[in-house]
Amino acid sequence: MFTVGVIGGGQLARMMHPAATALGITLKVFAESEGSSAHAGATMVGDYTDFDQLAEFANSVDVITFDHEHVPVALLARLESQGVSVQPPSSALIHAQNKLVMRRRLAELGLPQPIWSEVKSAEELDEFVAKVGGEAIVKTPIGGYDGKGVRVVGSATDVQDWLDSLPAYGGSLLAEQKVKFVRELAQLSATNTAGEFRSWPVVQTVQAGGVCSEVLAPAPSPVDAVAAVEIARGVAQGLGVTGVLAVEMFETESGELLVNELAMRPHNSGHFSIEASTTSQFEQHLRAVLGLPLGDTELLAAAAVMINLLGVDGENDFVSHYPKAMQAFPEAKFHSYEKAPRAGRKMGHITLLGSDHELLKANGQAARELLYRGDA
Amino acid sequence: MFTVGVIGGGQLARMMHPAATALGITLKVFAESEGSSAHAGATMVGDYTDFDQLAEFANSVDVITFDHEHVPVALLARLESQGVSVQPPSSALIHAQNKLVMRRRLAELGLPQPIWSEVKSAEELDEFVAKVGGEAIVKTPIGGYDGKGVRVVGSATDVQDWLDSLPAYGGSLLAEQKVKFVRELAQLSATNTAGEFRSWPVVQTVQAGGVCSEVLAPAPSPVDAVAAVEIARGVAQGLGVTGVLAVEMFETESGELLVNELAMRPHNSGHFSIEASTTSQFEQHLRAVLGLPLGDTELLAAAAVMINLLGVDGENDFVSHYPKAMQAFPEAKFHSYEKAPRAGRKMGHITLLGSDHELLKANGQAARELLYRGDA
Repeated sequence: MFTVGVIGGGQLARMMHPAATALGITLKVFAESEGSSAHAGATMVGDYTDFDQLAEFANSVDVITFDHEHVPVALLARLESQGVSVQPPSSALIHAQNKLVMRRRLAELGLPQPIWSEVKSAEELDEFVAKVGGEAIVKTPIGGYDGKGVRVVGSATDVQDWLDSLPAYGGSLLAEQKVKFVRELAQLSATNTAGEFRSWPVVQTVQAGGVCSEVLAPAPSPVDAVAAVEIARGVAQGLGVTGVLAVEMFETESGELLVNELAMRPHNSGHFSIEASTTSQFEQHLRAVLGLPLGDTELLAAAAVMINLLGVDGENDFVSHYPKAMQAFPEAKFHSYEKAPRAGRKMGHITLLGSDHELLKANGQAARELLYRGDA
Repeated sequence: MFTVGVIGGGQLARMMHPAATALGITLKVFAESEGSSAHAGATMVGDYTDFDQLAEFANSVDVITFDHEHVPVALLARLESQGVSVQPPSSALIHAQNKLVMRRRLAELGLPQPIWSEVKSAEELDEFVAKVGGEAIVKTPIGGYDGKGVRVVGSATDVQDWLDSLPAYGGSLLAEQKVKFVRELAQLSATNTAGEFRSWPVVQTVQAGGVCSEVLAPAPSPVDAVAAVEIARGVAQGLGVTGVLAVEMFETESGELLVNELAMRPHNSGHFSIEASTTSQFEQHLRAVLGLPLGDTELLAAAAVMINLLGVDGENDFVSHYPKAMQAFPEAKFHSYEKAPRAGRKMGHITLLGSDHELLKANGQAARELLYRGDA
């Protein structure tokens, strides 16, 4: 009846499976390789930069959507011109692929963001650094994620290698003010192909080494939840996003929210929704890209905490330590993505529901320790 | 790391998939045919009455468990003698396959049940009918489910066909008192291979035409919840059950509970637990048969209602009517088993969480109507 094709075989595609199974939606995955995290549904293994392979895959599904943002938009636009439903459309996805395009568009829309500049030379970058107080963030416009392609710089010499290879990054870099934030927030929302918009409660994200380590849902008060939703709505409508949209934001000392990053797909900051929300981000994404009405998004508990399980080089899969961790924390929801361990790699996560973020966080961290070490 | 083999490719095996995916447990399904409800995991299609096929399947998994109760216990005992972990073991499963064996064992254990008798002739049956007030329930000891193999009789002539074919039913029939119950309850529990026992809140089940139509969780008060759990514990321990056990019970006017039927696998009366419980019956079953510690079972809402979607001959799959039903009931959780429609067949279900059973039931029934008719 309904068939969704996901390009990319990572954990986000994997976690769409349970939602698809429940609803009786057929999920097909176009994976990069055999044995991907989403292997149960890897119905095609191929190269997503090859138009013919993409077109063949598109012919077997009702709609194309994504596990990652790396499919060249030109190829997607070509699919669209042949009548393929691509959600989010290439015209929206370009903003998630290219951070300069995103910054320009958010500026046009008047949405709050850090001071930024496109820089094409060491001189332009040093000028920007001086203007924003001697320290700035420099990002490669394309290809960065989880702290990759992002550097804190005091001068242009700190990114001399990037400046020497500018053509590889599209001819310029993105320089941003280093925002003095008190914490980071993420606003998850979904927009279906008919324009229906729904948002989850804004959450607080905790990063370690550029990678998300914990998420607190909802973000502990005080927080300007109305502003967070209005920013997400502004982005979704202004950029023409369909499906799940995650807007990562800085919260400043005055409580102001500034857009940091965008993701147009289910996102790490929304994994809490699998157990904690009436409708998970994975179910909502499927409904949204198929044009089905969206589901309710309220929390089923006063508080939820999600703890990421990051890989450690040379360690075995933490699944072998389930007995100890499950014994100690019968309330914890354990998730494994069945990926080979590698330092810093997202291997799985734990979610806990309750009423007190601090208690949930402490329990989640203790459960994580048991998974890593296998003892108490 | 952990591999579970499920014999049977129906909706119960299907609904184990999301739980297995989350935990990173490998699920293999031994299905009767291609295109089964659990097709995503049908790693082997074959005949579960063929020992060699069963043994081959068993060699590829850590533990064998079930989607149904139809595998001959002699074959399972033979697998066990070769060192295969079968959960529940054949010594327990025989009680779910043969209702006379079950009645005898419950009597030995002193567990409360209707007055019953094994009958081998029309005379014995008529004598029993007279003794219990002129009306009785007659069941074929093996092979009955969802109202099949069960008849209300006023005399032996009402089951003359069964009496004429006694050898096909093992040589005798089970006659039971027709209990004057005020409602039916079901107590879901799980026991892992190490003996850990956990129970969900007792629920009320509503039957129509011998098939479950609705489940209210928890069973509206007053209910002797302690007695319900103690009966379930007595059955699980007395019969040596592992995995999920559903005990269907009659509640009499005085509040007494009498055991009606047993199922040693995830059960229709426990589908509410997918969204309404910290640990669903499907996750718990996997943990239990693998010998992993069990998860918490408390409800995430004050009330939950599960409504079955039964097939109607000649109708299309209700999934085509999702748009109307999802629009009207964004809080409803829709489940399709992707089975071909047939009158009375379990095709899917709807679960709603909230605080008022009557409201949830009314909304669930209205959502079901929209799914069947596609209009308001």
